[in-house]
Amino acid sequence: MLNPEELEKEEESDYFDYFFDEPGSEPGKLNIEPDAKPSRIVLIDYDQSHAIRKVDVTPNALIPYLGTNTISWMDIQGLGSERVLKQIGEIFKLHPLLLEDVVNVPQRPKLEDYNEQLVLIVQMVRPKDNEEGFESEQVSFVLGTRYLLTFQEEEIEDCFDIVRERIKANQGKVRQQKADYLMYLLLDSIIDGYFPVLEDYGDRIEDIEDELAIRPNTNQLKEIYLIRRELLALRRAIWPLRNVTNMLVRRESSLISSEAQIYFRDCYDHVIQILDIVETYRELASSLMDAYLSSMSNKMNEVMQVLTVVSTIFIPLTFIAGVYGMNFEYMPELKTRWGYIICLGFMGAIAGGLVLFFWRRGWFEPFARPNIPLSKKD
Amino acid sequence: MLNPEELEKEEESDYFDYFFDEPGSEPGKLNIEPDAKPSRIVLIDYDQSHAIRKVDVTPNALIPYLGTNTISWMDIQGLGSERVLKQIGEIFKLHPLLLEDVVNVPQRPKLEDYNEQLVLIVQMVRPKDNEEGFESEQVSFVLGTRYLLTFQEEEIEDCFDIVRERIKANQGKVRQQKADYLMYLLLDSIIDGYFPVLEDYGDRIEDIEDELAIRPNTNQLKEIYLIRRELLALRRAIWPLRNVTNMLVRRESSLISSEAQIYFRDCYDHVIQILDIVETYRELASSLMDAYLSSMSNKMNEVMQVLTVVSTIFIPLTFIAGVYGMNFEYMPELKTRWGYIICLGFMGAIAGGLVLFFWRRGWFEPFARPNIPLSKKD
Amino acid sequence: MLNPEELEKEEESDYFDYFFDEPGSEPGKLNIEPDAKPSRIVLIDYDQSHAIRKVDVTPNALIPYLGTNTISWMDIQGLGSERVLKQIGEIFKLHPLLLEDVVNVPQRPKLEDYNEQLVLIVQMVRPKDNEEGFESEQVSFVLGTRYLLTFQEEEIEDCFDIVRERIKANQGKVRQQKADYLMYLLLDSIIDGYFPVLEDYGDRIEDIEDELAIRPNTNQLKEIYLIRRELLALRRAIWPLRNVTNMLVRRESSLISSEAQIYFRDCYDHVIQILDIVETYRELASSLMDAYLSSMSNKMNEVMQVLTVVSTIFIPLTFIAGVYGMNFEYMPELKTRWGYIICLGFMGAIAGGLVLFFWRRGWFEPFARPNIPLSKKD
Amino acid sequence: MLNPEELEKEEESDYFDYFFDEPGSEPGKLNIEPDAKPSRIVLIDYDQSHAIRKVDVTPNALIPYLGTNTISWMDIQGLGSERVLKQIGEIFKLHPLLLEDVVNVPQRPKLEDYNEQLVLIVQMVRPKDNEEGFESEQVSFVLGTRYLLTFQEEEIEDCFDIVRERIKANQGKVRQQKADYLMYLLLDSIIDGYFPVLEDYGDRIEDIEDELAIRPNTNQLKEIYLIRRELLALRRAIWPLRNVTNMLVRRESSLISSEAQIYFRDCYDHVIQILDIVETYRELASSLMDAYLSSMSNKMNEVMQVLTVVSTIFIPLTFIAGVYGMNFEYMPELKTRWGYIICLGFMGAIAGGLVLFFWRRGWFEPFARPNIPLSKKD
Amino acid sequence: MLNPEELEKEEESDYFDYFFDEPGSEPGKLNIEPDAKPSRIVLIDYDQSHAIRKVDVTPNALIPYLGTNTISWMDIQGLGSERVLKQIGEIFKLHPLLLEDVVNVPQRPKLEDYNEQLVLIVQMVRPKDNEEGFESEQVSFVLGTRYLLTFQEEEIEDCFDIVRERIKANQGKVRQQKADYLMYLLLDSIIDGYFPVLEDYGDRIEDIEDELAIRPNTNQLKEIYLIRRELLALRRAIWPLRNVTNMLVRRESSLISSEAQIYFRDCYDHVIQILDIVETYRELASSLMDAYLSSMSNKMNEVMQVLTVVSTIFIPLTFIAGVYGMNFEYMPELKTRWGYIICLGFMGAIAGGLVLFFWRRGWFEPFARPNIPLSKKD
Repeated sequence: MLNPEELEKEEESDYFDYFFDEPGSEPGKLNIEPDAKPSRIVLIDYDQSHAIRKVDVTPNALIPYLGTNTISWMDIQGLGSERVLKQIGEIFKLHPLLLEDVVNVPQRPKLEDYNEQLVLIVQMVRPKDNEEGFESEQVSFVLGTRYLLTFQEEEIEDCFDIVRERIKANQGKVRQQKADYLMYLLLDSIIDGYFPVLEDYGDRIEDIEDELAIRPNTNQLKEIYLIRRELLALRRAIWPLRNVTNMLVRRESSLISSEAQIYFRDCYDHVIQILDIVETYRELASSLMDAYLSSMSNKMNEVMQVLTVVSTIFIPLTFIAGVYGMNFEYMPELKTRWGYIICLGFMGAIAGGLVLFFWRRGWFEPFARPNIPLSKKD
Repeated sequence: MLNPEELEKEEESDYFDYFFDEPGSEPGKLNIEPDAKPSRIVLIDYDQSHAIRKVDVTPNALIPYLGTNTISWMDIQGLGSERVLKQIGEIFKLHPLLLEDVVNVPQRPKLEDYNEQLVLIVQMVRPKDNEEGFESEQVSFVLGTRYLLTFQEEEIEDCFDIVRERIKANQGKVRQQKADYLMYLLLDSIIDGYFPVLEDYGDRIEDIEDELAIRPNTNQLKEIYLIRRELLALRRAIWPLRNVTNMLVRRESSLISSEAQIYFRDCYDHVIQILDIVETYRELASSLMDAYLSSMSNKMNEVMQVLTVVSTIFIPLTFIAGVYGMNFEYMPELKTRWGYIICLGFMGAIAGGLVLFFWRRGWFEPFARPNIPLSKKD
Repeated sequence: MLNPEELEKEEESDYFDYFFDEPGSEPGKLNIEPDAKPSRIVLIDYDQSHAIRKVDVTPNALIPYLGTNTISWMDIQGLGSERVLKQIGEIFKLHPLLLEDVVNVPQRPKLEDYNEQLVLIVQMVRPKDNEEGFESEQVSFVLGTRYLLTFQEEEIEDCFDIVRERIKANQGKVRQQKADYLMYLLLDSIIDGYFPVLEDYGDRIEDIEDELAIRPNTNQLKEIYLIRRELLALRRAIWPLRNVTNMLVRRESSLISSEAQIYFRDCYDHVIQILDIVETYRELASSLMDAYLSSMSNKMNEVMQVLTVVSTIFIPLTFIAGVYGMNFEYMPELKTRWGYIICLGFMGAIAGGLVLFFWRRGWFEPFARPNIPLSKKD
Repeated sequence: MLNPEELEKEEESDYFDYFFDEPGSEPGKLNIEPDAKPSRIVLIDYDQSHAIRKVDVTPNALIPYLGTNTISWMDIQGLGSERVLKQIGEIFKLHPLLLEDVVNVPQRPKLEDYNEQLVLIVQMVRPKDNEEGFESEQVSFVLGTRYLLTFQEEEIEDCFDIVRERIKANQGKVRQQKADYLMYLLLDSIIDGYFPVLEDYGDRIEDIEDELAIRPNTNQLKEIYLIRRELLALRRAIWPLRNVTNMLVRRESSLISSEAQIYFRDCYDHVIQILDIVETYRELASSLMDAYLSSMSNKMNEVMQVLTVVSTIFIPLTFIAGVYGMNFEYMPELKTRWGYIICLGFMGAIAGGLVLFFWRRGWFEPFARPNIPLSKKD
Repeated sequence: MLNPEELEKEEESDYFDYFFDEPGSEPGKLNIEPDAKPSRIVLIDYDQSHAIRKVDVTPNALIPYLGTNTISWMDIQGLGSERVLKQIGEIFKLHPLLLEDVVNVPQRPKLEDYNEQLVLIVQMVRPKDNEEGFESEQVSFVLGTRYLLTFQEEEIEDCFDIVRERIKANQGKVRQQKADYLMYLLLDSIIDGYFPVLEDYGDRIEDIEDELAIRPNTNQLKEIYLIRRELLALRRAIWPLRNVTNMLVRRESSLISSEAQIYFRDCYDHVIQILDIVETYRELASSLMDAYLSSMSNKMNEVMQVLTVVSTIFIPLTFIAGVYGMNFEYMPELKTRWGYIICLGFMGAIAGGLVLFFWRRGWFEPFARPNIPLSKKD
């Protein structure tokens, strides 16, 4: 059992690391994490005329559905039960390396063709609940002729449920189509889930823009750094999807019909758009870092100007006062009637000259600087 | 109804975001925005010998024009009437995903081939009315054998009207050509619309160049940042057009004649030129950011030199004055006849020496600095 | 008629902008600039045994030379006479878009194949007369079977004249070769014209290197910025030539013999070398910007050290003097015989200690800093 | 014999340099380093029914195993015995250049096909024992039909031993497979060895993130620089592996079965993941350098604010005190009863006004700045 | 005759410029530099059974060796004798452009196929004698069926001599092989000559690393800039070799046997390694520039801290002393018995408080800063 601190730690590094085997470990070894959820299987079997749903099915109960002409969607939720996973591996004749990739999360998104089966691994993202940032979860698809296996770390409620509803209610075309169309529906909803996450980053960038020029401080620096770090992680999750979806469109496979390819082309388009936005945000974040540095430099300039104006005016005056504070016996000016007045006048003249000099240079601006957001000009 | 603030907000984020579906929503679902203009259809039908124009046509009234040998240009202005759009989708047998891309704006520019139809989606830009920056609008083309469908968010007046005039007056070659030439004419005028927008950015960059070295201030920083942000958005709109127009030139399609391809090659050339300019401006804006930072550094240096020169001259003198202001009883210098004069002379000598020292180093330059624009040297 | 200021303005923006049509204007429309030179035609007709030259030929007078077996070089100087240009377009059956590209300068360099004709558009550069920078001019070639049309904005004296001389004097192989070899000769001299311009930039970069570390000032900042801006423009003119010359080498065209391709391979080599140098200079200019910023930072450091050394030594001493300048009645030190001397000695000790402290740290270096160019080390 | 300092030196430059011959030296010359370990040979011979292991075998004793149907793994540990290496070269008919690459370490990772043999050279990395960083060692594979030769600089204990154990205990599929599968097992464990090294860098980056904003100092600067340098070296070792493993997957070779290619595809995936992480870390390190500079700039700003606030408040007050310390005879204020109190009040008013002015500007923040790690916001 | 200063100048710009013709000059024109060495020819003719060497051969004396079955290596040392070079051009039927490239140095490295001959142009580098940096020299190879022509600017002693020795002594395989193997031997020794030059840069970078954090100064800035400049030049010399050697490996040419291609593959490997190192050094130099700027920023921070600590402590104290130095008649504190002591105590308390404040913030660190090289941490 991990204590909260360790959990947070892990979550953070989640942005960076892929799963890796112990060097030298046996290929195909399943690595069940201690805190992984136990696996449960949800079966949905449908064709044009019927649709049934069974929860908590045992692996062996899936066997009868393999030989039928209906479409079977077996959804494995939770990757914690090694026995269940191995049984499924045997029933569906999954290659050991395939099963390893599905279970040992996270993996890099990929599409692999094992002749009888097409394996698709993607990362799903969703915004974190009470804080900024996002969390990701691996979803794996194994597409066979008349079935689709999906593996999730936890039960994904929102978007998968909508598809289940649609099958049940016979909405849209899903019941007229094959398993490839079902995979498209699920993949599409996973990909569309990137947009709200990206929108958050857009908002955060705009917030920094608004604050940056008004009051540059270390919080913005941290926020910019965090955004860059998280966008890097996002890009790592989405970039391989570009190839993956492109392969789905281009590849000739008996498992994917040409009609479904038109739909996968739509997925490809969305992935390209997401990448477009990620790259734009990355460039903006990098521009913001430049702007931050320039803004700090501005601020320091203002501080220096204040110091310089005040020092330059008063230091010479203080010197003059110091001169007439000397205790020499023979200082004739000290005895004169108007000496003090003249001296003050002289000091005033110097101060006035310096003020004028600085005024013309615009060095008094920092004393009366208006603060305007980066996204607007005076 | 949105209040003005929200509208402005939306307009701003317009630079960044593509349209995205609710994750899990049904493919092909049309998303009509609440403030979208109602759709009206303008039909222009012409061949070498005639040209007619009908406004506010109903979708069904378009059907007779599908079977004729004349060229029909159906221009749908406004994407607000779901019923009208769906009727058009049925009449022209548009794929649901196609219609979705046309209606759910904005999309990334693309060219897609649906066998019987060629679909082209582009972003049109025009300068904003009373402020800097530009606004963009999606224009979609559906090219069939003898017809061209265009979809616009709002009625585009300027450049489309010129083409309408030309058809009416039988100017140029448009009446002798097929629908592909008409599509070229419209696409060409959209692409040419990028140049004036770019020219604005050229002017803004030159303005910053002129101001930057004279009086670096935060306004320039903001302006550079805004230019970088907007050029990013511009590039995102134009970059995919490169592939799109290249595909129009290279692809073998029964819908585009080899003669029209020579014209599309001209579009391709212009897109390349626009990209060239965008990249040049981006590099210039990035150079300007460097120059800004250097310029700030220069300015700070000058401020520091002023402070240092003044402090370094007067602080030692003040010390000397302080020494002879001490109240020790036995300070023989104080009693001497010429002590005061010698002391003043000594102070003058120190000041003179320091002035000479700083003069030779060129540290008096900031006291008499000429301000020259970045684009000119002394 | 433009006034001098506007001319200068235009010249400057010349670096950035391509020609663009009014959006919506008719394809193939010629845009004659008001200040364009009137067009005159110089004809040179030659074969192995003869060579004639005629100046100020009318377009119609060119017709007889089209049917002969000799090589005809028609050189159109000045793009100001629309009638003449259109006549030439008709006589040589030039595509309207081709003529548009030739006349509406500047265009991006390109090579286009119109079956019977090969069109090559390049930018010629030459150093400005009395100032730094370069100016560019578009030269267009239309290569037919036995003729070569060239279009220039103004008469190019130097390098084209040398070729004319060579034809007249039957020097080299030009009279034995076809029109493709003539095009090579002219293209080669245009490309070689980039080298002297680049050499200027090499010199300017070396000048900045020499000055930068000795006395960093805003002039260098401006110069670096200008160099970056102009190299961007140069690259834009030369980069497309890479593809263009490569296409001349690789492409199979009846208009270019395999023997001439060996010569065009030489052009390609030179273009690659020019690009190499441009990229090198761009990287150097970018390094110089870094060096400038670092150099400014160095300078500021020195200024700060001077201030700090002086302030840190004298401010504590002034404080001590201030203490003994206080007017308290009971200050026993003031009465003592050696108080003043001891006080001065104490001050001297503090000053000496601080000087030693700063000396060891090397903070006195800025007081005696040797100035050495960037390209040499101490 | 090298002294410790030289050894350390060499180890450091190990990050950068490949082995190179004396210019002009004979191709195929073996360069035995003076401190190289003497070569010993470990032979493992196995098939489905048996597995034997012999240590310290002489090269000639290997000959009988070449003609059998069993799989022979000859592991040469240490590259210090020229005679042994040359004998092996003769027995296995290794090309002189092949042997040169194997012996003259380090080489760039590569895969080369010598018809009868496939040669694979990779760099193995492992974390350093008592300090940060990693050390690398070259491992070379020569794959024949029924044998696998491996060459190591030193005996690699950990991961190779696990494979030996597995052969001995007949665990997994290794005894049922050919030599290509054995090569996969070894290569896989080498590649998996990169992950723990990378994890170290992830931790070091997180450490800097935590420290950077709290207390920026030169140690972090050094650490960031070191990380960048070492990641460069890591990337150099892993980048070529991308091509190498991809070739193993794609290439048709009689030495690698299609079944083994599925396994090598797994290696390829891991290499891609490692590269992904390396690039991510490189970008993070670069962001950290920016953040460091910004953080220093922040810190300096705070220092300057403290100085400016204190100076700006007290310098004018000191001037006023100086004025009333002057010794003019006629200074009427000095005689008045309340002069002193009024003067003190006036000083207090000025000080209060300035404090208020700075307070509103937020310039007192540095006096009470909370220090928060980069990875968290206030 | 150039004076020494001009020679140095030329040598410097040698890093940047390629040779270029006068624009408009005739193709194939040889440009003999005034200070070029006169050409002498060294002939080596050999086969398995014999090897002869003749120095200072006339071009015509080479003719008899063209028809024989032996391998002839004609080495032309010095490019100063136009007559000799032209004679060789005629005897070996060299294309005028080929001869131009060989003579008009420097050229970009390239490989060109003139059917009967393969022409290879490379840049040889060697460290400068008494200073840092390198100098380069062009070596050209013309490979015929049974002969190899080499052109050098000056006689290259070291590495070519070793090959000559090997031919004479019949060491290695050279006498059993064709002219292609001879070309490999020479090319290999030229490529291996890059490694020692690169090693110098590695040492220089390590020197800067060691010095940078201890005592950042302008010398390091200059050194970093120089390294970047020279690495740019090195990369320009080696980058094209990548393509050139790759073409030697891939290309099917009757002049290069498949056996020799295995050897050229070795050259290709070395070129890739050199590029690898150059890129690594370039990235390191760029990181060093960042580190330099950060290090300067650190140093300035320390200077500022010293100034701020001293000023902030003494300026308020000086003010207090100033107050009690005022000459008001009614200042009751002045009369009290313990006024002076209390005043001093109060001053001490303020000073102590401030010292404590700064101590806690770590602002006293710069007073006792340890200086540690960049490559090591505290």
